[in-house]
Amino acid sequence: MAQTFEEIGVADFFYRNRDIAGFTSPSRAVFSAIRELVENSLDAAEDVGALPDVRVWMFKKGETTSGVSIYKVRVEDNGSGVPPQSIPSAFGKVLFGSKFKLRQARGTFGLGGTMAILYGQITTNKPVKVISSAGGPKAFAYKLMIDVERNRPIVLSRKVLNNGSGWRGTIIELHLEGDYLRAMPKVLEYLKQTALVNPHANITFVDPKGRLYVFSKATEDVPRPPKETKPHPYGVDVELLQRLIRATNCRNMLDFLRAHFHRVGEVMAKRFLESAGLDALRDPRSLTHDEVVQLSQEMKSFKWFLPPDASCLSPLGEELLRAGIAKELRPEFIAVCQRKPSAYSGHPFIVECAMAYGGDIPKAEYFTLYRFANRIPLLYDEASDVSFKVIRSINWSRYKISSDMPIAIFVHICSTKVPYKTIGKEFIADRQEVKREILFGIREVARQVQRFLSKREKAERQRKRLNVFAKYLTKIAQFSKELAKKEKPPNVERLLKKLKEIDLEAN
Amino acid sequence: MAQTFEEIGVADFFYRNRDIAGFTSPSRAVFSAIRELVENSLDAAEDVGALPDVRVWMFKKGETTSGVSIYKVRVEDNGSGVPPQSIPSAFGKVLFGSKFKLRQARGTFGLGGTMAILYGQITTNKPVKVISSAGGPKAFAYKLMIDVERNRPIVLSRKVLNNGSGWRGTIIELHLEGDYLRAMPKVLEYLKQTALVNPHANITFVDPKGRLYVFSKATEDVPRPPKETKPHPYGVDVELLQRLIRATNCRNMLDFLRAHFHRVGEVMAKRFLESAGLDALRDPRSLTHDEVVQLSQEMKSFKWFLPPDASCLSPLGEELLRAGIAKELRPEFIAVCQRKPSAYSGHPFIVECAMAYGGDIPKAEYFTLYRFANRIPLLYDEASDVSFKVIRSINWSRYKISSDMPIAIFVHICSTKVPYKTIGKEFIADRQEVKREILFGIREVARQVQRFLSKREKAERQRKRLNVFAKYLTKIAQFSKELAKKEKPPNVERLLKKLKEIDLEAN
Repeated sequence: MAQTFEEIGVADFFYRNRDIAGFTSPSRAVFSAIRELVENSLDAAEDVGALPDVRVWMFKKGETTSGVSIYKVRVEDNGSGVPPQSIPSAFGKVLFGSKFKLRQARGTFGLGGTMAILYGQITTNKPVKVISSAGGPKAFAYKLMIDVERNRPIVLSRKVLNNGSGWRGTIIELHLEGDYLRAMPKVLEYLKQTALVNPHANITFVDPKGRLYVFSKATEDVPRPPKETKPHPYGVDVELLQRLIRATNCRNMLDFLRAHFHRVGEVMAKRFLESAGLDALRDPRSLTHDEVVQLSQEMKSFKWFLPPDASCLSPLGEELLRAGIAKELRPEFIAVCQRKPSAYSGHPFIVECAMAYGGDIPKAEYFTLYRFANRIPLLYDEASDVSFKVIRSINWSRYKISSDMPIAIFVHICSTKVPYKTIGKEFIADRQEVKREILFGIREVARQVQRFLSKREKAERQRKRLNVFAKYLTKIAQFSKELAKKEKPPNVERLLKKLKEIDLEAN
Repeated sequence: MAQTFEEIGVADFFYRNRDIAGFTSPSRAVFSAIRELVENSLDAAEDVGALPDVRVWMFKKGETTSGVSIYKVRVEDNGSGVPPQSIPSAFGKVLFGSKFKLRQARGTFGLGGTMAILYGQITTNKPVKVISSAGGPKAFAYKLMIDVERNRPIVLSRKVLNNGSGWRGTIIELHLEGDYLRAMPKVLEYLKQTALVNPHANITFVDPKGRLYVFSKATEDVPRPPKETKPHPYGVDVELLQRLIRATNCRNMLDFLRAHFHRVGEVMAKRFLESAGLDALRDPRSLTHDEVVQLSQEMKSFKWFLPPDASCLSPLGEELLRAGIAKELRPEFIAVCQRKPSAYSGHPFIVECAMAYGGDIPKAEYFTLYRFANRIPLLYDEASDVSFKVIRSINWSRYKISSDMPIAIFVHICSTKVPYKTIGKEFIADRQEVKREILFGIREVARQVQRFLSKREKAERQRKRLNVFAKYLTKIAQFSKELAKKEKPPNVERLLKKLKEIDLEAN
């Protein structure tokens, strides 16, 4: 029997392989659906510089004969809204979206929201309802289904609503088979940690039992909206170069480099072209295949390009990270460290690390690890994550830290493209450049914790020493008094106070 | 700023997100490329019932200016060959392939081979060469590149060759940037473990230094080629039902059920239709949306469907598994267990477990785990795999087994669809049904190992006891002789022999 060949559509591919997008089981499906919709909502609000206000409801609508529940999930936000002509494709077509840019965003694959809708449809066969407005006098309401084989939306109904109040945002309502009871701990942990790294967001959640969870915003500062950026020359490959050459309006290499690459100005472009032996006036479209290959290699190995500019990124900042941890875990000590921007494959990224000791941090078998990427928490498959691997690789005895101490480690990576290993955004690939930054960040906070611990140990020793002095000095004084046949013992208070002062200075 | 929307092609999606398909770093890229091509070759040989003969060469062709090497990778097999008209799409188009069937195959996503070619192209900009023949008088040679944005092949050249010798198979030659030195341990381990579970295959590998590795076949038995199967009613969803209804030629429900579902015969179909309250003569195309949803739920909850038939699966078998382990690890004891076929989402699967003790098995911190799926080894991200989680969940003290004993655990899952969590086929999702079968399988082999260990311990105790008897009985005999003033001591040999016999019987 010879092999027979066929082609399938991309929606069909993800329908057949929903495991890889985080829709493995009824409980994971609930988690993934909520997560993807909340993340889209947060992104949409930040796009228009708004303080996000995201409201999630789950209603139990029944049970299937096989014992799984059917829920209605409704997510409402105050984000940018989706232009009416784009609504059908944005919610009813896989690989149609607003995330295919070089820009820091929670969504990465342009896939999650549509996967949630697709999963809902194949388990309940109910359409998704979308209402959206950009704040104008009209709002638009759609009922949609997905034609999975053809990867295109089926519009069941479309209504134009009056939007007298000028409401801006998007409401999505879908039905899905799920298991909220088993998903609950992860869903709540997800919302809690999301609130921790998004203190400017209001998030409310009403679970299927009607319980209300409110995560109120703790600041009125909107983070700087992330900016779109150009590819950095170090991350360029042949395919990208060819695309840029096909699309460019520039008629010489000098303009081409200045127009399409991150941090390449006139001086830098000239210097590079000279080093690569390319004529600055050459038309980029005249480059042969081999010359394009050569160009991509020269770009990767040219040593003088400026590092990527972090201004397009929106890290948490040391202060915010510290405040979030303090609020959540009330530890005795917090060390934080924001690394300098770095880049992998042309994508700038910033690593932020923190390490907290004591307080509400549980003693675990091995440090408690909190992972974040572009301000969202990662809760699954910790052991495959680059941060986990880095932490395991460190010789902790060098820092006089043992892994069973009540220590929590935080790693936040923000980037125009987070190198996730799975479409379900469970964990981050061990890209060499990312690994190194995490390692250096954790080493830095580990040193701070080491200093704190050794100070604390020293203080402890001194406290004990003073206790001993305090106990015996008075006895010695008493004894000396009797020996010297004096009326009163000598004053030891002054002596003790002096010892304390010397200790304090030594610290 | 409002969100702007755009659509990207599927090849473009995987180009942008190559991390998720196992092409994370230069060393992973070498591993993934070899692995995907070898797996396609093994599948292609088994398709035509041939003993696979797979030859892999790597040649170092240079170094990039940034210090990564460029390799030529050539993989030759004796498989089915690809029909000439399908060659361009099979190698130059994402989501075009022969793997979108309900059939046990190493390839699952119809993506790996094309991803290797795509990765080679974007790192070196060199075309892939493909030569293929189904064994007829002609062979066909193509030079191809992929148009990533449009997801279609660009044929650079096409030649028809004379194939006088009747050679059948496929040769692929591609160039890629990679790091073989760092990939080497995993590549060799991969080939070794692949040989272990494919003892009917010849695999040779010439590495970039010219070192030859040969894994010769140990049996002439071709495993039964896996058969294509129909979906099992328990795994049906609304989308699938609708597709079947759209495509069917059957004009009544009775025929429809018998024709399109696994293990549903006339009697079963009638019984089901009665229980679901559906008319056997109803035209399936007349079902409303709601009735289709109803039908899918009735199918999932109907208790009398026969379990999926394993005849479409090709497990290793206990004998082969035992032989492979014995050859590779020379342990003191091997327990194997093949579980009965089960199913998740309509996909039949069989779990095979083994546990081996002693011999060449290293003492690890925690048992050494070997994972296989459809006769291929899984080497990355062990900690996220369902087997790993199952093993960690077991209370080993119940089996008097401690995790630092020299014990290796083997789990092989074969299925018409392995529930991988990543497109790179690194690890398997924890589907409830799969988890349970693995748990039961491991418990069974653990009990056998427990019996072996307790027997061994008992034997050890008896050996010690006999040693004590042997030592003291003669002394007692001597002493009694003197006490009784006899000439000769009583014969203890007979007594010792009898004790030994009693012990043997007790075992």
